[in-house]
Amino acid sequence: MAEKLNDITRKEALDGLIKSGWSPVDGRDAIQKQFKFKSFVRAFGWMSSVAIIAEKMNHHPEWSNVYATVNVVLTTHDAGGLTDLDVTLARKMDALAQ
Amino acid sequence: MAEKLNDITRKEALDGLIKSGWSPVDGRDAIQKQFKFKSFVRAFGWMSSVAIIAEKMNHHPEWSNVYATVNVVLTTHDAGGLTDLDVTLARKMDALAQ
Repeated sequence: MAEKLNDITRKEALDGLIKSGWSPVDGRDAIQKQFKFKSFVRAFGWMSSVAIIAEKMNHHPEWSNVYATVNVVLTTHDAGGLTDLDVTLARKMDALAQ
Repeated sequence: MAEKLNDITRKEALDGLIKSGWSPVDGRDAIQKQFKFKSFVRAFGWMSSVAIIAEKMNHHPEWSNVYATVNVVLTTHDAGGLTDLDVTLARKMDALAQ
């Protein structure tokens, strides 16, 4: 099972993610980001790619979609907070959105 | 452009949808439903089918997904409330979830 990030890995990982637009979620050990696309097809196409990766990782986002916008929250429910899985999935989401 | 449902068509349409688990959204002329599936793959598979239909209709849901659960809100932003488009999409969502 994934373990919560320790202080050192957390700072290192979060610094990078914050630069790419992720931010902490108030009141939860979680991160969030809003992704905007040019159309619904682009937005859902990205979600489809992420969904396949998430299923392979057995680690799934909380996300919502309205037309071309997708809001994502990542945390590891089993661990009660952020783990390596969230950092990995966040980076893959960013890479697929480029 | 789609027009808001009049009182008669609204009652007729909503009665049927309420029987299948849809409910009005507080403070908005919109309807909502929670869909639960057996797995993330089933949930996202259903979303993918709905996404194609929504794009064909040029009418898109507000929806969020956490693992095997999908929460949907339907309204027609252009019309400022519920239209035939929402009723049609709601029925197609139900049919695809069976």
